[in-house]
Amino acid sequence: MDFKSIIRKKRDGFALTKEEIEFVAFSAANETVPDYQLSALLMAIFFNSLNEEETLWLTDAMARSGDMADLTGIDGIKGDKHSTGGVGDKTTLIVAPVVACCGVKMAKMSGRGLGHTGGTVDKLESIPGFKTSLETEEFVNIVNTCGLCIAGQSGRLCPADKKLYGLRDVTATVDNMPLIASSIMSKKLAGGADCIVLDVKCGSGAFMKNQESAKELAEKMVEIGRGAGKRIAALITDMDKPLGRYIGNSLEVVEAVETLKGNGPEDLSEICILLAAKLLELAGKGGFEECKTLAKSKIADGSALAKLAEMVKLQGGDENYIFDTELFPKAEYKREIIAEESGYVAAMDTEGVGSVCVALGAGRQKKEDSIDPSAGIILEKKTGDYVEKGDLLATLYCSDEALFAAAEKQYRKSVTFSAVKSDRIALLLEIVE
Amino acid sequence: MDFKSIIRKKRDGFALTKEEIEFVAFSAANETVPDYQLSALLMAIFFNSLNEEETLWLTDAMARSGDMADLTGIDGIKGDKHSTGGVGDKTTLIVAPVVACCGVKMAKMSGRGLGHTGGTVDKLESIPGFKTSLETEEFVNIVNTCGLCIAGQSGRLCPADKKLYGLRDVTATVDNMPLIASSIMSKKLAGGADCIVLDVKCGSGAFMKNQESAKELAEKMVEIGRGAGKRIAALITDMDKPLGRYIGNSLEVVEAVETLKGNGPEDLSEICILLAAKLLELAGKGGFEECKTLAKSKIADGSALAKLAEMVKLQGGDENYIFDTELFPKAEYKREIIAEESGYVAAMDTEGVGSVCVALGAGRQKKEDSIDPSAGIILEKKTGDYVEKGDLLATLYCSDEALFAAAEKQYRKSVTFSAVKSDRIALLLEIVE
Repeated sequence: MDFKSIIRKKRDGFALTKEEIEFVAFSAANETVPDYQLSALLMAIFFNSLNEEETLWLTDAMARSGDMADLTGIDGIKGDKHSTGGVGDKTTLIVAPVVACCGVKMAKMSGRGLGHTGGTVDKLESIPGFKTSLETEEFVNIVNTCGLCIAGQSGRLCPADKKLYGLRDVTATVDNMPLIASSIMSKKLAGGADCIVLDVKCGSGAFMKNQESAKELAEKMVEIGRGAGKRIAALITDMDKPLGRYIGNSLEVVEAVETLKGNGPEDLSEICILLAAKLLELAGKGGFEECKTLAKSKIADGSALAKLAEMVKLQGGDENYIFDTELFPKAEYKREIIAEESGYVAAMDTEGVGSVCVALGAGRQKKEDSIDPSAGIILEKKTGDYVEKGDLLATLYCSDEALFAAAEKQYRKSVTFSAVKSDRIALLLEIVE
Repeated sequence: MDFKSIIRKKRDGFALTKEEIEFVAFSAANETVPDYQLSALLMAIFFNSLNEEETLWLTDAMARSGDMADLTGIDGIKGDKHSTGGVGDKTTLIVAPVVACCGVKMAKMSGRGLGHTGGTVDKLESIPGFKTSLETEEFVNIVNTCGLCIAGQSGRLCPADKKLYGLRDVTATVDNMPLIASSIMSKKLAGGADCIVLDVKCGSGAFMKNQESAKELAEKMVEIGRGAGKRIAALITDMDKPLGRYIGNSLEVVEAVETLKGNGPEDLSEICILLAAKLLELAGKGGFEECKTLAKSKIADGSALAKLAEMVKLQGGDENYIFDTELFPKAEYKREIIAEESGYVAAMDTEGVGSVCVALGAGRQKKEDSIDPSAGIILEKKTGDYVEKGDLLATLYCSDEALFAAAEKQYRKSVTFSAVKSDRIALLLEIVE
């Protein structure tokens, strides 16, 4: 098969065949095609897009381009949950143990944080001893023992997607819905779960800035998942402000634990119940309302928290940190951001807030960067809250005092005030299934 | 300047600035941008094209990206002639000496052949001793001495174009009129002539398969040339059959010499007079008709032939080959193609005929291939001619008898017969100026 003919075909608006799509994915994975041909094809796809069939074929081929998670050793129905990435999004740490308590196996592979969005693996690694790099056997054993395991993604997970995503990032070909959807879904298909709930974030802190594009992405992903034989649904949720109040790695574990104790912030608690319930519904545990009640009960009776602690222990971590979050080391320095005016918080540039976190050392600008587990932000006021001049807006935490000046300046720029209170935006915008 | 932003801007349909276009050209020339970003940009240009200003800026920047011919040492008005490439096109060998005889300096840089089209430099190198690689001083001296010099292109001629063309060729981004026009014209601008006549070939043996696209290309190139302050015109000429009867390197020198003696085939003679006359007109030597008469007189009085011989001698070649073409070594083997049916030659797949020549060793499939100067084809029957079964259609020449079987088969496939004579197509289809 000739790669140039494939480029020309897509360039001229024709649909590619399954064989051609597979050739593209495997050539990308094995680096048997030069980057300049891949990037020309990606730009042709940007213009002429991929139809439903092509998108499914591409996703499937990318999923099969590397190691597929072998979950055959796990008994029972397997669930997965994916978020398109936001700021303060620690839902996996809550949803996964809740769902596992209800008998759905959560054999979950998670990524690391990059840019303004955090990663579940980084958060868990703030617990001393916690191992995210597991052999398949170990992974399967832990899931079979406690119903839950959260591991890092293997190096050979979807190498075709890794290659294509890397090129898209530097050739202005990221913004294509079928390519975005297939990139996410290839990793979900390779993950091997039966039921998948997607949390598609929408707003200033999300990849999708408006509900229309978030819905389009959700529909594409659900379409792919269904085409691949999965039970799947997507929740479109608000990310126009950070989720919860704690942002940063150990800080988010702390807030997740509080939420599992029933003391979490309203928005975070609500979204976790919604996600858990939808996944339980997909797994056949009852209707949506029934599953919400079920999920809530696993928080109320403490079993979800115990489940998280059990998992932490099985993955080599010190479970005392879950029962007593005071054990987490505090950041060396803190800086309080005091309101300089009175009024309502009208809007938050959530991506901006995420970037402050990165600047404090809690995230990565580049893949190679190391992170500071205790750095981050605790928000005291969020969109819609009334603030009196002199009130505490937020507290910044980090290990290098010199970072505060720029971080405070950037944080202040990210928050807009108004004399009037803006309408509350619903957290759950839409369900696509 | 950030290359990704430039890609995104063009992708989104915006015009690039002069600075951005120059950044692209110089980054390409100096290899300071990765190929995958260049090819993504080229595909975005394929879709959103370049406007008139962008095309001129790109052409100018590519011309300046490497060595510009320094013709300041040459007195008088300087002419150049370019053909978009055809089969049997030896017009430069005739037009250049004719024009030089009329006082227009022909300081010409020519390319080598690639694919089914031949190159002037290859043809001249079939003359023993002929040097096409010249230092600027030598080149200028020869032009000042005899009014004419034909040299090979320097390695640093338009490196930006070389880079971009190389990528376009492998990423299916060749077919874009502004890119095609700027590629050709960058080399003409770097060549430094004041007056340029373009021969835009059209038909089965040309890059432009129909008159509409040939006209579009001609208009773009004339627009660029005029924008760069050149006197310029384009002739759109027929390449639905090979030009003249001889195809191959030394064979084409032989036919050029015959044409300069007044014994050339009608089509070749006619087109050479038209091209020479148009160039002379641009150089201010009179009206078009007047210039035709002038050009013809230089053939009739033998001065153009003498001029070619003088140039050959000054470039180190044996001028006896010009006066006595019997000196050219003959190919070791020949194969006569005999008509197997009677009828009119209805059509020739001219590109196919060119490919037969390449297969015989007269051309290059890849840039690195060496060529056989004596290989080629002499055509006895062309489109419109009546053929009796048993007549000689053509004679193939080469140095390896084993090549004939496939070449004959391919040659026969390239010629179509019909019971009725087709209308003669005019040689000159249109003039764009």
